[in-house]
Amino acid sequence: MVDAKLQSVLSSLAQPAKDLEAQSPGQRAPDARYVKLNTNENPFPLPTMVWRSAISALERQYLYPEDDNIGLREAAANAYGFSKDHVIAGNGSSELLGLIYRAFLAPGDSVAMLSPGFSFNRKLAVLQSAKFLEVLWSDSHSIPIDQLLFGPAKDAKFILLANPNNPTGTFAPIADIERLVAQSDRLVVLDEAYVDFAPDNGLRLVRRHPNLLLLRTLSKSYAAAGIRVGFGLGHPELIGRLRNIQNVFNMNVIAHAVGVSILSHRAAYEENHRHIRHERERVAAALRHFGFRVAPSHTNFLLARVPNGQDGRWWHAALEREGVLVAVFPDDGLDHCIRISIGTKEQMDSFLAAVAAISERLKRGG
Amino acid sequence: MVDAKLQSVLSSLAQPAKDLEAQSPGQRAPDARYVKLNTNENPFPLPTMVWRSAISALERQYLYPEDDNIGLREAAANAYGFSKDHVIAGNGSSELLGLIYRAFLAPGDSVAMLSPGFSFNRKLAVLQSAKFLEVLWSDSHSIPIDQLLFGPAKDAKFILLANPNNPTGTFAPIADIERLVAQSDRLVVLDEAYVDFAPDNGLRLVRRHPNLLLLRTLSKSYAAAGIRVGFGLGHPELIGRLRNIQNVFNMNVIAHAVGVSILSHRAAYEENHRHIRHERERVAAALRHFGFRVAPSHTNFLLARVPNGQDGRWWHAALEREGVLVAVFPDDGLDHCIRISIGTKEQMDSFLAAVAAISERLKRGG
Repeated sequence: MVDAKLQSVLSSLAQPAKDLEAQSPGQRAPDARYVKLNTNENPFPLPTMVWRSAISALERQYLYPEDDNIGLREAAANAYGFSKDHVIAGNGSSELLGLIYRAFLAPGDSVAMLSPGFSFNRKLAVLQSAKFLEVLWSDSHSIPIDQLLFGPAKDAKFILLANPNNPTGTFAPIADIERLVAQSDRLVVLDEAYVDFAPDNGLRLVRRHPNLLLLRTLSKSYAAAGIRVGFGLGHPELIGRLRNIQNVFNMNVIAHAVGVSILSHRAAYEENHRHIRHERERVAAALRHFGFRVAPSHTNFLLARVPNGQDGRWWHAALEREGVLVAVFPDDGLDHCIRISIGTKEQMDSFLAAVAAISERLKRGG
Repeated sequence: MVDAKLQSVLSSLAQPAKDLEAQSPGQRAPDARYVKLNTNENPFPLPTMVWRSAISALERQYLYPEDDNIGLREAAANAYGFSKDHVIAGNGSSELLGLIYRAFLAPGDSVAMLSPGFSFNRKLAVLQSAKFLEVLWSDSHSIPIDQLLFGPAKDAKFILLANPNNPTGTFAPIADIERLVAQSDRLVVLDEAYVDFAPDNGLRLVRRHPNLLLLRTLSKSYAAAGIRVGFGLGHPELIGRLRNIQNVFNMNVIAHAVGVSILSHRAAYEENHRHIRHERERVAAALRHFGFRVAPSHTNFLLARVPNGQDGRWWHAALEREGVLVAVFPDDGLDHCIRISIGTKEQMDSFLAAVAAISERLKRGG
């Protein structure tokens, strides 16, 4: 009787929710003793002024957050040189990606992503019963514009790319991005999560091209992954459609306060950005010394090919035994690579010491 | 050229996003000098222990929140007497409502809500291109079970009701709810946002009926509307389906910390709940003295019918001129009513003074 009712309820699910099996339990946060270099966090404390804004917001915890994220959208508009109608604010750019998928994809539609890219996108496509097309972006060449416009992806409702790209760290010249956007009459979603570590950015394209939607986040360069603040920047008509399907009160009062305050105190992060660029190059040079091949990076991480004949997952496990967490991407044709986030000098010293110890053991063993 | 591209992008929107016109700018938060009794907030500060948890979370702001809200779901499971597989955590119960709509409704499907109810649901139905059926729940009768099961709502994919109800404040005996759930083989979503102010609750039904999904929030009785913490409680199979379509990192580290801590310190709120019940009855009695008809309430608000021949919207405007904000529901057949949230003694004294002043002016004018 109970089971029959449960089956009846489950049978009334819509198709995408039916297609996805109930998921396994999520992963607990790793023990704090690990050196955590696996998710591109930026271990930098809140500047004093931002901290004060957060405290002041905690004192208003019983009030609903401001409607439609107005103050936060205004702060982002000011920071990026737009009006607030050009801005949507989200609970991380992951919420905004979800909205874009929902806004544009009906069952059977397709979306194209430059690959390797942010794997979360595959799941978002499944949720819309949409086809997910991956167009290979090899790190040694420029953006494959023709394949995006005329290949199997030509009917995709929108095109996704990240610049700099994750997990490769590759940065495409903005002129290349503009060529793609200008030649396409579909929406191009440009994720600039890591752009504050790169030499240029696509902000100036937003005004010129109504088919461009730019995503920004405070998770990486503003060290606020735990607060969940992301922005979409685009033509007000497009932004209005996305705001329209967004849930009410999608961000809490702390996200509002911290977001507004970070955007007003961006100068306080410049030293952190210099530190990350410096450590990135120091670690890259050291890894090359150990026989790794390290791609040039314009982000707060490095993608490193492990020494010849070795495997990324093996190194991942060996580093974990040394107390260091890094990321691997076996599903993205990157079997021989590990991705290392750039943290504090102490964290990177621990990582390099672990690499040295593992290399030494390999040498003795081999 | 620019406009043609914009039209091309907008024409590739999926139907629901096309159907909704770009929305008007949201409303700014009202001036803090207003006595704000319009959205059922509960002006009670964070208890010291909860405050400390929030501060400690702010120091981990650069780390991504815990995957799948595990710790928060465990805390809710402990508080409500379940395992964490029975719990989904959301950015307010509004996020969870959105997930339920997405999980169960394909275009053309229908959903039924006891009316008057939470108007946000109408928009959620539009987003799924679904039909929204309202079944009248008159406050003087019990739940219209037959109409829900055999009337025009008989094909609805799920049934929504709130107990106590908003904006009426009505509380239905749990036995009535159970009769509905037992007789239906569809999903029943029972929103218990206000239940901590009521004499009973539906928790015990969750284990008995796999077609029941119960919603709870920390916004009202735990004074944390600004933090955005809500829970869904139901059969693990059903909860798993909803978690599966939920976005990653949907809640920030502050929501996690405050949520866990509130659930561990619920006794600290008992005095607040006593205060609200006491003020509610004091204000109801005073309003009756001024000629209002006040429905019995089991919530932190009162629905009051204004004196004969007068209009709810008129009172709403008159109170606003006196610096007091209340809510009106002209679209719900409640033209003659205002809804007043119960706040501090000082706030309620200000409200009653405003009612006295307006009544006095009416008497002199009439």
